[in-house]
Amino acid sequence: MPPPCASIGRVDGEFELIAALRRRMQAAGAADRSPRLILGSGDDAAVSVPGGATATSVDALVEGVHFRLPPFTPANVGHKALAVALSDLAAMGAQAGEAYVQLGVPESFGTEWLMELTDGLGALAAEQRVAIAGGDIVRAPVLILALTVVGHAEAAERLLSRAGARPGELLAVTGELGGAAAGLLLLERAELAQGLDPAMAERLRLRQLQPQPRLAAGQALAAAGATAMIDLSDGIAGDAGHLAAASSVAAVIEPERLPLQEGVGAVAKAAGRQALSLASGGGEDYELLVSLPEERLAEAREATAGAGLGLTVVGRVESGAGVAVSAGGESSGWTAGFDQLRPR
Amino acid sequence: MPPPCASIGRVDGEFELIAALRRRMQAAGAADRSPRLILGSGDDAAVSVPGGATATSVDALVEGVHFRLPPFTPANVGHKALAVALSDLAAMGAQAGEAYVQLGVPESFGTEWLMELTDGLGALAAEQRVAIAGGDIVRAPVLILALTVVGHAEAAERLLSRAGARPGELLAVTGELGGAAAGLLLLERAELAQGLDPAMAERLRLRQLQPQPRLAAGQALAAAGATAMIDLSDGIAGDAGHLAAASSVAAVIEPERLPLQEGVGAVAKAAGRQALSLASGGGEDYELLVSLPEERLAEAREATAGAGLGLTVVGRVESGAGVAVSAGGESSGWTAGFDQLRPR
Repeated sequence: MPPPCASIGRVDGEFELIAALRRRMQAAGAADRSPRLILGSGDDAAVSVPGGATATSVDALVEGVHFRLPPFTPANVGHKALAVALSDLAAMGAQAGEAYVQLGVPESFGTEWLMELTDGLGALAAEQRVAIAGGDIVRAPVLILALTVVGHAEAAERLLSRAGARPGELLAVTGELGGAAAGLLLLERAELAQGLDPAMAERLRLRQLQPQPRLAAGQALAAAGATAMIDLSDGIAGDAGHLAAASSVAAVIEPERLPLQEGVGAVAKAAGRQALSLASGGGEDYELLVSLPEERLAEAREATAGAGLGLTVVGRVESGAGVAVSAGGESSGWTAGFDQLRPR
Repeated sequence: MPPPCASIGRVDGEFELIAALRRRMQAAGAADRSPRLILGSGDDAAVSVPGGATATSVDALVEGVHFRLPPFTPANVGHKALAVALSDLAAMGAQAGEAYVQLGVPESFGTEWLMELTDGLGALAAEQRVAIAGGDIVRAPVLILALTVVGHAEAAERLLSRAGARPGELLAVTGELGGAAAGLLLLERAELAQGLDPAMAERLRLRQLQPQPRLAAGQALAAAGATAMIDLSDGIAGDAGHLAAASSVAAVIEPERLPLQEGVGAVAKAAGRQALSLASGGGEDYELLVSLPEERLAEAREATAGAGLGLTVVGRVESGAGVAVSAGGESSGWTAGFDQLRPR
């Protein structure tokens, strides 16, 4: 006999499905326990003994808004949902600990796709040593993944907010920019890849489909003396504005110094766009933007190199407010919502 | 110039909207800081210093699946989403600490409704002293609230899982059952309220629209010697099965002892249903089911009375597996998915 209240909204066979997904998650190498996690998925709540300080962040991906199937595969979606959430922990300099996964699943999204989604999420969890501590599955009109991630540090002072940047410091970014936006263009308009090196084009697509959270670099930068940090989810024009606002300073960016990923220029040209607009306003590169005193630059570079990433100085912190592009340089294509708030 | 990537999926004016919602949350009396919460909403992640042990749970409500607008008001939805999540912390005996709110919002859901939703969520957060530590707003095809709640205890041993019930113990429930299912019937079929005391009918509707998480009772029961606990979200027939499975025991329920909320019988009769089916299978009452040694019953009753709730013995724990209704009693209408797994 079915329960009388349709309002409970259970997915049919929810408990069996969750058990199957947990097994699949383990097969992907993801743990459901950790030294901190005493009681994991399956009870009313997960129980942990965090010690020190925790950083907690939430992030959601919604089908039709943040991704489409295709070009995203279910595994891409699982990977990206966790990656985007973990990127916020990277931006705090935290060590990733646990993730909680809330899934909204339409009836058209079959069990095999759920298993593939779990593979993608589980593989990244295993790689980043994130324990899947809990979750929930409900029926929804489109596929939705709402992630909560918890990171750890020995003490709260080890975690880096957006608020510590001081005038005179340098602004630097990890890795390379513009790849995620160029990858999205390639996914939406396949003809743009004509004449591009296929391997290079695929690297650009993967920046969009499977971004990598910069957890090791974030921890290394926090330890190396960075004073403020944010991840580049919206694009440096917007995200530098958030950092500047939180720190009550101005961010002055030199657009010609932005490290463009290989192929961004070619894709932009083929699409009739400017490379700088992809790198500054495209977003979703999930690199880290940091402020740091000039005397810590060498140490910081060594730290990110240890995490396999370059560190490029792209500007400086000044007193004032907002984001400005430095005068005199080449800034055609700079996509900035905060340009009008130039520092004095 | 709009960002090139539609895939980012920002709600227009997201940052201003979040700031407005934070102000509204504070006006409702909800804190965005606590002694444990060092850095709240607005950075990449919230930073806290938990100390002791934490209990973390996630829960989501989806429009059209878990609620409809109307009969739910936006404030009801905000209240219920937080209440349902906190109920899991109650079932651990945890003290509520922080909540993270992920909102998926359709374009048709205007800013004023979002403010009202925030009022409902904020009022319950203020009442239960839950700090709103973070959140996220994304565009979605229907209204979605995905909550993450964190509770605290001095040590992990103070938190109560589902797994500690032992044969010979009593099973007891807080408060009264069937009200949420009866309230749903009244909301769906207004004519059923004819002849009912209007105040009583309204109390039933509010059990559905604005459930109360039993946080104080949960902490009191954990301190009073309960050995296992679960909240009644699916209905006692199903939830007793989860407790029994986690504890590797059988739960034997005496249906005639279930404490029915006033009016449940009358609504069931008017709807051509059996009162027991609403109380056993209706779900969403969010009372607590506990196992405890008989010699702790008086202390446990005193504990829940201190939280304003009755505690009613409804059965016992036996060796075996599954849920059974005790032989000989009146069990017509018992809604059980696990009945066939009678203990040996």
